[in-house]
Amino acid sequence: MNATASLSRPKPSDADIAAVAAELTQRFGGRAVSSAAVREQHGHTLTWVKNQPPDVVVYAETTEEVSEIVKLCAARGVPVIPYGTGTSLEGHVNAPLGGVTVDVSQMKAILAVHEEDLDCVVQAGVTRKALNEHLRDRGLFFPIDPGADASIGGMVATRASGTNAVRYGTMKDVVLSLTVVLANGEVIKTASRAKKSSAGYDLTRLFIGSEGTLGIVTEITLKLQGIPEAISAGICPFPSVKAACDAVIMTIQSGIPVARIELLDEVQVRAVNAHAKLTLPESPLLLLEFHGTEAGVKEQAERFGEIAAEFEGGPFDWATKPEDRSRLWQARHDAYWAARGLRPGAESVATDVCVPISRLAECVDATKQDILASGMIAPIVGHVGDGNFHVQPLVDVSNPAEVEACEAFVDRLVKRALSMEGTCTGEHGVGQKKMKYLEIEHGAEALNLMRLLKQSIDPHNIMNPGKIIAL
Amino acid sequence: MNATASLSRPKPSDADIAAVAAELTQRFGGRAVSSAAVREQHGHTLTWVKNQPPDVVVYAETTEEVSEIVKLCAARGVPVIPYGTGTSLEGHVNAPLGGVTVDVSQMKAILAVHEEDLDCVVQAGVTRKALNEHLRDRGLFFPIDPGADASIGGMVATRASGTNAVRYGTMKDVVLSLTVVLANGEVIKTASRAKKSSAGYDLTRLFIGSEGTLGIVTEITLKLQGIPEAISAGICPFPSVKAACDAVIMTIQSGIPVARIELLDEVQVRAVNAHAKLTLPESPLLLLEFHGTEAGVKEQAERFGEIAAEFEGGPFDWATKPEDRSRLWQARHDAYWAARGLRPGAESVATDVCVPISRLAECVDATKQDILASGMIAPIVGHVGDGNFHVQPLVDVSNPAEVEACEAFVDRLVKRALSMEGTCTGEHGVGQKKMKYLEIEHGAEALNLMRLLKQSIDPHNIMNPGKIIAL
Repeated sequence: MNATASLSRPKPSDADIAAVAAELTQRFGGRAVSSAAVREQHGHTLTWVKNQPPDVVVYAETTEEVSEIVKLCAARGVPVIPYGTGTSLEGHVNAPLGGVTVDVSQMKAILAVHEEDLDCVVQAGVTRKALNEHLRDRGLFFPIDPGADASIGGMVATRASGTNAVRYGTMKDVVLSLTVVLANGEVIKTASRAKKSSAGYDLTRLFIGSEGTLGIVTEITLKLQGIPEAISAGICPFPSVKAACDAVIMTIQSGIPVARIELLDEVQVRAVNAHAKLTLPESPLLLLEFHGTEAGVKEQAERFGEIAAEFEGGPFDWATKPEDRSRLWQARHDAYWAARGLRPGAESVATDVCVPISRLAECVDATKQDILASGMIAPIVGHVGDGNFHVQPLVDVSNPAEVEACEAFVDRLVKRALSMEGTCTGEHGVGQKKMKYLEIEHGAEALNLMRLLKQSIDPHNIMNPGKIIAL
Repeated sequence: MNATASLSRPKPSDADIAAVAAELTQRFGGRAVSSAAVREQHGHTLTWVKNQPPDVVVYAETTEEVSEIVKLCAARGVPVIPYGTGTSLEGHVNAPLGGVTVDVSQMKAILAVHEEDLDCVVQAGVTRKALNEHLRDRGLFFPIDPGADASIGGMVATRASGTNAVRYGTMKDVVLSLTVVLANGEVIKTASRAKKSSAGYDLTRLFIGSEGTLGIVTEITLKLQGIPEAISAGICPFPSVKAACDAVIMTIQSGIPVARIELLDEVQVRAVNAHAKLTLPESPLLLLEFHGTEAGVKEQAERFGEIAAEFEGGPFDWATKPEDRSRLWQARHDAYWAARGLRPGAESVATDVCVPISRLAECVDATKQDILASGMIAPIVGHVGDGNFHVQPLVDVSNPAEVEACEAFVDRLVKRALSMEGTCTGEHGVGQKKMKYLEIEHGAEALNLMRLLKQSIDPHNIMNPGKIIAL
């Protein structure tokens, strides 16, 4: 392809930044903020990625306002960084060249719920929990659940998924249409509200996973699910991670429509027990959930129990009461914070590889040996039905040797997954930290095509520069 | 966006065509064909779209050969048109500027089946039936089933779906990765074999539905499904199309995981009865199929029966024997040919709109009234679980008044669907005939973004020119 020009761009001049800041203040008053605290908060991420604050933060309330902000920035070549809840894990919200962060957290209107069509239209700042709160009385739910209570806009940007993806898919599967502000401030809608369409290029999925580098998503039409008649959840210990993974493979192959099937290694179980005051058996553990009718759920559970027994797993312990179930999944969602409790004061490093499920046991096994050899504390959790798992090394960042060792470990982990036909990120996204792996994963020509897309759609590289595609 | 330049391009010169033809003959011998019959066959479509044959047809056997052909054509600005089985319905395989058709029907190797991962890798010319034949002994199947026995490459190109889409999704949902030859002959792989990834722009879905206008798909990694333990199918008559649609809405809303739910109006039922020697009740009819365990399928069927009764549908008649089930679905898949039997000698016009399911009954109803008023014979079938339906007017193309009336009808149909937040094509694709609706459906800015993608990726407009984006 013809994308040979560099995507590098200079930092905007102080004069341009000052001019844009003045224009934003004039237009948005107190909603345009330049205080150090707010700027720093908006460059902050949950991991050890270095904070690179923007110059100005603007709290937008509508698509039209986002368009206005982008136009002001485009006129002076000032970078624009979208921000939802700041829970991304690879430095997505950093502003390496400064610029204007568009905070959409106040865009939290649920614009429509079409019950008959099982869809809804939300502004980008609506969080997944707020949406589910709103939907509950209608018997509907939105299934995608990354650990954090992320904004829907941010989840679109990173192509997020979570524990329900094995059954309900990832963000790429649940978005019908997007409203997007492009790099010149133009507003487009990517698709109609029809459940399927063959009417031209898939603009919707062009923006899903584009991390704000091609445009800013301001409204999203989402597919919803009916809350199942029956839900049951349970835990099943296994003698080894390999036995647990083998049970997962057979469960998926057997066509059991499991809604969640999550692996915690024994280190993570210890962390969760301590954090959530639970008494889970401290061995590799699968957490499961089944959705369906009363009879269907019972049948699924029985069949899974038989499979688990084949791999010396069990006993299979059911949480039939909703409150026990909630506690279990809250514990799973808090795995990140629980893990941090294993080494107070240490920083947590997020990792996120995904391999074909046939390679999962091998990949997790080799990774555990690597952890052991390195002497790190690094629990593992995984959306194993999809072949996706996270290792969470806990690192004393004041110790350069430890930091270096951890970076080398993460590098080996990613390359191990790539060598098994996997990906460097299953759901967290590329941000700043995974950019260096894209060429290994995709090849130079495919990466060049991505670069071409970026250059064509954002020719002045003002949209979240320095993410996905190198500066 | 900045895509203001026209995509028009001149017809290549006779000298360039002659030179490319000579080069192709030298390289591919008897696999490069310029006979009138073969050329005409390759511009042929199943509908009334005018035949525009290419200058040369080359039967490619590998990705590398496709790359060579594209490079030869690119060097002289000669158009390249991909061809699978020629079963597309909107003029996709026509060559309005002449050029070289790359026939991939001989690329029919199934390169790998990964049973543990529920995926496989196929060449683009493998047809859906050949793939399922190959998979059957392994207990796996590939669910996407357009009416024709299309090639997988063609199904990728048009973002095809079919009767199973309500449960298993469309082509956009079942492709893990593609090998694509770009407009300069470069070969890329769009993704790894991991079940999910957030590693950059979604190149896979950029090409799904791009109809050969951005590149030629040569290999496809597909998700597969386990053949369900139990399958049951049935038919259920309804007093009206509206009652049938309302039953569909409630079935979907209730979360019954129906595998197929197809509508035939009474005209189509008459056609099917005559064609397949069946005795289906000649009223609006739902054809259903349920996949699951023995108990699960029984439960689903009972619950559907209750819903049908609420809308005065029934009796609900079960085809429990596999041969009866096959006959039923064969009859459904033959609906196209059955319909043609209603008016021997007439041409059949394919239509394909899709609306949010809440608008389906209204859209089908208004369309039936329109058919009645126009005096046409035009049966209706629909993948109604997705809000997608096809009207198939039968037209005497030697009668200009009839042709004009039919074109006006199709135009009203599409605009009706668009006015209901629907799409001008649910699964057939844009080809030549739906281009004029893209701006109404997407808006000028979004269409301009599509144009920009086309211009960036295929700057000399040699890839299937005159499809999706105007010449």
